[in-house]
Amino acid sequence: MKSHTVYLTFHTQKRKEMVPITEQVEQIIRDSGVQEGLALVSAMHITAAVIVNDYEPGLWQDIMEWAEKVAPENPNYRHHRTGEDNGDAHLKNILMHSQVVIPITRGKFDAGPWQQIFYMEFDGQRDKRLLVKVIGE
Amino acid sequence: MKSHTVYLTFHTQKRKEMVPITEQVEQIIRDSGVQEGLALVSAMHITAAVIVNDYEPGLWQDIMEWAEKVAPENPNYRHHRTGEDNGDAHLKNILMHSQVVIPITRGKFDAGPWQQIFYMEFDGQRDKRLLVKVIGE
Amino acid sequence: MKSHTVYLTFHTQKRKEMVPITEQVEQIIRDSGVQEGLALVSAMHITAAVIVNDYEPGLWQDIMEWAEKVAPENPNYRHHRTGEDNGDAHLKNILMHSQVVIPITRGKFDAGPWQQIFYMEFDGQRDKRLLVKVIGE
Repeated sequence: MKSHTVYLTFHTQKRKEMVPITEQVEQIIRDSGVQEGLALVSAMHITAAVIVNDYEPGLWQDIMEWAEKVAPENPNYRHHRTGEDNGDAHLKNILMHSQVVIPITRGKFDAGPWQQIFYMEFDGQRDKRLLVKVIGE
Repeated sequence: MKSHTVYLTFHTQKRKEMVPITEQVEQIIRDSGVQEGLALVSAMHITAAVIVNDYEPGLWQDIMEWAEKVAPENPNYRHHRTGEDNGDAHLKNILMHSQVVIPITRGKFDAGPWQQIFYMEFDGQRDKRLLVKVIGE
Repeated sequence: MKSHTVYLTFHTQKRKEMVPITEQVEQIIRDSGVQEGLALVSAMHITAAVIVNDYEPGLWQDIMEWAEKVAPENPNYRHHRTGEDNGDAHLKNILMHSQVVIPITRGKFDAGPWQQIFYMEFDGQRDKRLLVKVIGE
């Protein structure tokens, strides 16, 4: 079994941002030399997420507005008594889920026609890391 | 390491539907010959989902109504400016999550007493694909 | 490829509870002898969840209150016609997701600075099982 682990760092300009990362993940898969296996793409922070969805900027705004509606900013979260102000980002992380598992077939992301991978930042403007671990043969 | 990949196609009669797939996944696991490993069960579309839950039709309706409440149909999604009308299906995909990882022990889905696998269609009435990739030994 | 499977049992005092399990998962990873691989941490019940988030009790209360708001208790779920009263727990399972995949690098949970693993019980006060399956080399 081969394994190959890469850490990507994101530092978004805005606090909340959706970053396409399909090409970076595909490059990591190629570099791994794995032909058949799985790639775990997982945020290393609990105020960010990773999703697979459509490459369509209008939809990205819909997704961000929906996340805000279901897991809104709110000054009254108990978490803020620790001095933090990112309670909503923790809830958005849970709502959107912090990881996806990517199938690798014949050395490539075995994707459907519209499947693109995105890093979702909910508390950015600082360095945040993401792990990609490829295992297989 | 063995790997075994199967693509299932669903074409639901209704636009939104919950389809039990445990038996199909169990057959794919048997066909793989894998005794110890993992099976990724992942929708190849971003308007469908895969979940593990209970085989109880009343609950299925509860789940569908809940999805509608949390990620409702709405003509005003920005995504619809592209000509699409399935913005809610993209949000339901994110809410329900598009994949599960199934543990395989002694050649079988290592399930709890009530765990059944379901494909959830949110924009059907056309061919949609699902990938099952088994890895292990 | 090595594999190592452990079943943990939880019996919470309260019906709904958040239980830190990072140390138990790390011990299982050490016991597996796997240096490079993945650990699937998956509830075997469909009224519980597994998440990665922050070790901060104020936040835990925020998370539980948020789950209650998005997937509330409600006597009118159809599922309750079967004699059950835990419809909300099934929806919370879907909302929070029943599993996480943990990356293992150099024999350890390859975690970001704040990533801790939690079992989330939504229908406890009875024995409930969780599976940890480690695969790798």
